[in-house]
Amino acid sequence: MINTRVIAPAPGAYSYPLLIKRLLLSGVRYQPGQEIVYADKLRYTYTTLMERIQRLANVLVEAGVKPGDTVALLDWDSHRALECFFAVPMIGAVLHTVNVRLSAEQIRYTMNHAEDRLVLVHDDFLPLMEQLQGELQTVEGFIRFSDAEPCATELPVLGEYEALLAAADSQHEFPDFDENSLATLFYTTGTTGNPKGVYFTHRQLVLHTLNELGTLAACGGEPLLRSGDVYMPITPMFHVHAWGVPYVATALGIKQVYPGRYEPNQLVRLFREEQVTFSHCVPTLLQMMLDCEEGRKTELDGWKMVIGGSALTQGLAARASARGIQIYCGYGMSETCPLLCLTSLSREDLALPLEQQVPLRINAGVPIPLVDLRIVDEQGHDVAHDGESLGEVVVRAPWLTQGYLKEPEQGAALWAGGWMHTGDMGCINHRGVLQIRDRIKDVIKTGGEWISSVALESLISQHPGVDSVAVVGVADAQWGEQPLALVVCVAGVQLDQKSLAQHLQQFVDNGSLNKWAVPRHVRFVDEIPKTSVGKINKKLIRETHAL
Amino acid sequence: MINTRVIAPAPGAYSYPLLIKRLLLSGVRYQPGQEIVYADKLRYTYTTLMERIQRLANVLVEAGVKPGDTVALLDWDSHRALECFFAVPMIGAVLHTVNVRLSAEQIRYTMNHAEDRLVLVHDDFLPLMEQLQGELQTVEGFIRFSDAEPCATELPVLGEYEALLAAADSQHEFPDFDENSLATLFYTTGTTGNPKGVYFTHRQLVLHTLNELGTLAACGGEPLLRSGDVYMPITPMFHVHAWGVPYVATALGIKQVYPGRYEPNQLVRLFREEQVTFSHCVPTLLQMMLDCEEGRKTELDGWKMVIGGSALTQGLAARASARGIQIYCGYGMSETCPLLCLTSLSREDLALPLEQQVPLRINAGVPIPLVDLRIVDEQGHDVAHDGESLGEVVVRAPWLTQGYLKEPEQGAALWAGGWMHTGDMGCINHRGVLQIRDRIKDVIKTGGEWISSVALESLISQHPGVDSVAVVGVADAQWGEQPLALVVCVAGVQLDQKSLAQHLQQFVDNGSLNKWAVPRHVRFVDEIPKTSVGKINKKLIRETHAL
Repeated sequence: MINTRVIAPAPGAYSYPLLIKRLLLSGVRYQPGQEIVYADKLRYTYTTLMERIQRLANVLVEAGVKPGDTVALLDWDSHRALECFFAVPMIGAVLHTVNVRLSAEQIRYTMNHAEDRLVLVHDDFLPLMEQLQGELQTVEGFIRFSDAEPCATELPVLGEYEALLAAADSQHEFPDFDENSLATLFYTTGTTGNPKGVYFTHRQLVLHTLNELGTLAACGGEPLLRSGDVYMPITPMFHVHAWGVPYVATALGIKQVYPGRYEPNQLVRLFREEQVTFSHCVPTLLQMMLDCEEGRKTELDGWKMVIGGSALTQGLAARASARGIQIYCGYGMSETCPLLCLTSLSREDLALPLEQQVPLRINAGVPIPLVDLRIVDEQGHDVAHDGESLGEVVVRAPWLTQGYLKEPEQGAALWAGGWMHTGDMGCINHRGVLQIRDRIKDVIKTGGEWISSVALESLISQHPGVDSVAVVGVADAQWGEQPLALVVCVAGVQLDQKSLAQHLQQFVDNGSLNKWAVPRHVRFVDEIPKTSVGKINKKLIRETHAL
Repeated sequence: MINTRVIAPAPGAYSYPLLIKRLLLSGVRYQPGQEIVYADKLRYTYTTLMERIQRLANVLVEAGVKPGDTVALLDWDSHRALECFFAVPMIGAVLHTVNVRLSAEQIRYTMNHAEDRLVLVHDDFLPLMEQLQGELQTVEGFIRFSDAEPCATELPVLGEYEALLAAADSQHEFPDFDENSLATLFYTTGTTGNPKGVYFTHRQLVLHTLNELGTLAACGGEPLLRSGDVYMPITPMFHVHAWGVPYVATALGIKQVYPGRYEPNQLVRLFREEQVTFSHCVPTLLQMMLDCEEGRKTELDGWKMVIGGSALTQGLAARASARGIQIYCGYGMSETCPLLCLTSLSREDLALPLEQQVPLRINAGVPIPLVDLRIVDEQGHDVAHDGESLGEVVVRAPWLTQGYLKEPEQGAALWAGGWMHTGDMGCINHRGVLQIRDRIKDVIKTGGEWISSVALESLISQHPGVDSVAVVGVADAQWGEQPLALVVCVAGVQLDQKSLAQHLQQFVDNGSLNKWAVPRHVRFVDEIPKTSVGKINKKLIRETHAL
């Protein structure tokens, strides 16, 4: 260890642990009247938010929640979830944001694995809880969220959320404690095995928030999120804390709109009626919002949007840009809290015509401050930053999960060699711009060469008759693997393999695609199978569409 | 202590200490060709900056600097100082930025108190070092910065900076160490006693940088500093690291312009020729730049400027705004690293006519994220947030000096009750906006009432014939104290006490000034005495202008 100079603080000096309460209670005070909105049901000011968080803390303590206990949350995107984002960790407990899109079996597994003690649950998921009740080994009570008149339930419910808040004291003194205390926990579903728990500490969430705040305002090319903006998440709050943006928005004191359950027409209507300026979502939801009735008839100008979660195709990005949406891409994953990279455009980039900006906007961006990102080969050596050499993306940052909960071996594999392994194949160019080519397991190996399934999807998506597309590798006796494309056509259009091959020929001609990478196997389908978080389910496609 | 849940990291997980090297080596990669400029003498790219910092690290190690050692820097604002900001703490040593405006005696005191081992010194300060050499008890060697042909010196000089860099290896592996290691150290001069050493750790500087980056981009009303901006400091780099902005600018990878010694015409010329968009300075320098020849003939539109260090009068702010400068105010001090508050304007504020914005722009702003700020009475109780009730400003933030170096009693007094005492009297309104009324010791107590010397200065400065003004309290047998105003008239204008009283009558009439606060004692002078950092030297005025 290096023997640097460390000085003991003066008597009385406050050492300031990085705690989530600091994002709420310190710093920028709020414009009077600035609102938190829950779809069409409720709106209140930050003053009320502060008071409700204190009431909730008192409700939790009254319900027996102790520091170190885990509290489960099953809800759509709501002001209640925002209140839990703060109140639960602020009393020293751990918030388990349950992915309500998992199967009942997976939810049972995660709730037992997390050792949830108290469950805060929307009435929509009461039947599920009733079904699982006998199998939830650690749960001692439930608090229900009712958007309408509460229905009957056989669960041991402590009460309805609003009634409990109303009865609680409006003041709570939040204590200081170790900044390395666990604050949040949720589960990520791999393609094999049980869901794995990733977890984040107060220190990590504060650092992620500060850095995401700075990055979104300072690094993107245009300012994406800052004082004066209006925020609405379109990535669920149970999915990596809605990418951490609710914490950023609260620290900034800006208007926040929580849309409840995602329905494309409703999302577009809320954008329009609440003057939303900033959102983030996966490509699938962007596409659904563009295609829905409200989306087709609404002016979408001035909607700044960060896309992530899976690769955004050039075709979809161009469509959204043409409608006035300012498209940026973020890169990260559940294990990374999530933000690692963001599209960065120079002044010269921003002066380009829109269609020339699109390819620059859909790359994975550049690493944000404090993120140390490398592309390494199978021996762990850095590959050249030439925009072509492929390798695995490995990272260090102050906000990466330090393992998988109660899975030391899988945690050690994630952190092999002291770097977090993302499982993504990418390249980086001389300007430091990252491009993700594929998941390591989705890369198609054909005749000794590698084909990026994601790159192929992007080229195919540019055919005007293609609504959406998925490419996977399927076993082939001669070549090892062969690309197979599943294609959904635009309504009323009919395509065949030959017309797609003709479309792809232009890319073969200009050298951006190898001739042998043009898929000879194309299947036209009504729908692309998706995972619970809206990503293309390539594992399922490979299983069900073997040649 | 609260028993929260803390989990041991998985084997191999990287814990990521917050070290200054991360601001440089991680995160946003730089646009190729983005420059660091040293006045008219040198310009180079970030690639070169990275290489020079590694060379400097090797020079320092070669010169015998060990982790924990202190290295002194005496220079004007330069690329060399920027290189020291990184290289010295990155090898685990401590950078002592010597205030070259102190007296020789004070400099001797601080260099001995800091136990400086190696001194990096501009040729302009070689005579001073030669004068002090026999009395510098810990200094073992000097490295000289020569902007011209090096002159002869009798000092034990290891070499000239550029020659040493050129001869050094261009690669250096920077180690990890405790994030609570001391990184920087400098001295603040009170009105009594010896200069006091304040010190900041790697963790504190990283957190200050992240937060200042976010604040300047996200919180100001308009974006003040972000990707695409061009930065030039006009607060010396030896004064609280030029308010920490060189670290922010480097983390952002934007163009930086270091002006050398401050000369108003040269500063304005650099603004114009280098397309500077963001600076920060004290009111005195703003005034000098407006008044100088280049300042009068240059279009100043698009220059965003944060003013701090002492109170900005409404008159000067209005003049600067009328010239196109976007004026913001920051609040902080040496002990606070320094940023605590920044002007925050809402959309509605920004829609107001410029003259109505001026009063909003010159308040001390709102506390930035993570800053916990209170106004307390003499018993330590919070005063009302009504925009009127006065009290001392006390703060907590992650980047406050944890004491005064080797002065435990003064450190304990600074941190009395677990809050840092700023020594400023202020009030806060219902929107959380702070107004500093005065230093506690500068408040004028007359007939049992308090008069803010700063408020009086602001009102007097609005007289078109007033160039600058200082107000102090002087002993008065009848009233205890009486306000005394020192006034510098605009060239060619002559004023008397009566004309100033007539000017102030309007504020008495509209209720913003008490009749008994109108100074009956006014002295017209050629110059207002200033301290080494350009603040009004009220102690000296009180001593030399007693009634």
